Amino acid sequence: MHVIGERINGMFKDVKQAIVDKDAGVIQDLAKRQIQAGAYALDVNVGPATSDAEGAMLWLVENIRKVTDAPVAIDTAKWDVMAAVVPKVPGEKILNSSKADPEIASQYVGLAVENGAGLIGLTIDADGVPGNIDKRVELGAQIITVAMEGGLALDKLYIDPIILPVNVSPKNPGNCLAAISQLKMFADPPPHLLLGLSNVSQRCSNRPLINRTYLAMAVACGLDSAIMDPLDTELMNAAITADLLMEKMIYCDSYLEAARQG
Amino acid sequence: MHVIGERINGMFKDVKQAIVDKDAGVIQDLAKRQIQAGAYALDVNVGPATSDAEGAMLWLVENIRKVTDAPVAIDTAKWDVMAAVVPKVPGEKILNSSKADPEIASQYVGLAVENGAGLIGLTIDADGVPGNIDKRVELGAQIITVAMEGGLALDKLYIDPIILPVNVSPKNPGNCLAAISQLKMFADPPPHLLLGLSNVSQRCSNRPLINRTYLAMAVACGLDSAIMDPLDTELMNAAITADLLMEKMIYCDSYLEAARQG
Repeated sequence: MHVIGERINGMFKDVKQAIVDKDAGVIQDLAKRQIQAGAYALDVNVGPATSDAEGAMLWLVENIRKVTDAPVAIDTAKWDVMAAVVPKVPGEKILNSSKADPEIASQYVGLAVENGAGLIGLTIDADGVPGNIDKRVELGAQIITVAMEGGLALDKLYIDPIILPVNVSPKNPGNCLAAISQLKMFADPPPHLLLGLSNVSQRCSNRPLINRTYLAMAVACGLDSAIMDPLDTELMNAAITADLLMEKMIYCDSYLEAARQG
Repeated sequence: MHVIGERINGMFKDVKQAIVDKDAGVIQDLAKRQIQAGAYALDVNVGPATSDAEGAMLWLVENIRKVTDAPVAIDTAKWDVMAAVVPKVPGEKILNSSKADPEIASQYVGLAVENGAGLIGLTIDADGVPGNIDKRVELGAQIITVAMEGGLALDKLYIDPIILPVNVSPKNPGNCLAAISQLKMFADPPPHLLLGLSNVSQRCSNRPLINRTYLAMAVACGLDSAIMDPLDTELMNAAITADLLMEKMIYCDSYLEAARQG
C-alpha cells in the first residue's frame, strides 16, 4: 500500500523545534527513517511552528530532497501557500488537500495537472464532514468527476473519506469503511482511497492498537493508502500483512522484510 | 463477537495427554482460562487421542460442565459420534459441523433442532472447498435454505466459508472476505458468519500477526464469530477493538477490560 509518512509535521515538538532552529538534520533523519521503514511518500506540514508557512515549507522540502526522491505531500489548508510552493517543489509531489466543493476542487485539480502532481481530495464541503455514508460517497464522486473533467489521471487522485475519533463519533469508523467500499467501485481503475489514520484514535487509550486494527479493516474494504507513522513497527506489520491477505503480494517467510525493501 | 475457544482439541499435546490420562484438571483449567479471557463458547474436539471418540467427547463435556455453563461446540467430522453425543450434552451446545450438501445439511439441521442446539455449516460439498467466491456464496445460501426449511432459527446458524492457509492458497483470504460480505445480506437478521481463524496461517511465519490482522479484516466485512485462541491476548485485543470500530460497543478508556468481562 501507499504509506505516506506523517512524521514531518510541525504538530510534533521535535519537528516544530527543528523548523524554528533551522536544524535540517532532524528533518533529514525523519525522512530517511520513514523511507527505510517502508514509506512510499512523505507528508510535509509546517504546523504552528512559524507564520512564514511558505518559507518553512520550501525549507523542509529542499532539505528532504537532499536525502530522498520519494514523493512529498504538501500538506497545507491554505490555497495561497499551496499555489506558491507547489511549482517550486522538485520531483514527485502530492497536493494535500482539496475539499469537495466543485469550484475549490477545480482549482486544486488545475494546480495538480499544471505541476504533474497528485491530489488528495477530502469528502468535506461547506457543510462540513458528512454524518452519513451517502453524503461521503456523493462528495467523493464529485471530486472524481472534477478530476476526470480537469484531466487528472485517477491513479494520481486520493480520496480521503475523513476518519473522526471513535470516542467522539462512534458511527464514523463504520461509515468510512462503507464509503471506501463504495467509492472503490466508481471508476476502473479506481482512484486511491486514503485515510489520515491516526485521527481515529485521537485522545483514546490504546492508540496504536486502535490504529493498526482499523487500518487492517479499511484495507479489507479497499483502502490502499494511508497517512500514518511508518516508524510504528506493529502498524507497518499490520499494513504489510493486510496487503498479503488481499493478495497484493505472495507469501514468503520473510514477507515483512521483503515488503519494507520494496 | 462470538469467540469460540479452540484450545480443548486433541491436536494440542497437552489436551491429547489429558484425554489419555483422564486428567480432568488440565481440561477444566483450559475451560476456565478461555472463558475468563473472553470466550463466549468452547470448541471441544477429541482429535487423535483415542479410538473411542464418543466416550472421550462425553468425558470432556462432562468435566467442562463442572466449571462453566458456556455453550460447547461439539467438533467432530463423524455423524455417528455427533448423533450419539449431542443428546447427552447438558446445556447449550453447537454442532461443529455440517457440510453444505442438502441431504447432509438436513440431517444436521434435524439433530440441531431436536436438541435445541446451534449449527456450524461449512461452504464445502462433495466437490470440496470452492475455488471462487460465487460457489462459496451458493453453498452458504444452500445451508441457510435448509436451515430455514428445517426450522432452525438463523441466530443459531453459523456459516463458515472455510479459510485456507495464505501460503498455499493466496486468493482464498480475499475470497472468504467477499463471501462473508455477500452472505451477510442473505437474510435479516442474518446467520452468524464464522471462521476457523488459525487455519489462515498454517505453516506460516508470523502466525499471531497474520491471525489478528485477518480477524480485523473479516470483522470489517461482517464476521461476527470465530473459532480462535482467546488466550492469545493480542488476538483478543484485535477482536474487541474491531468490534468497537464497528460500533458493537461504545468507547470507554477501559473498553478492553469491559469487553472481556462481558
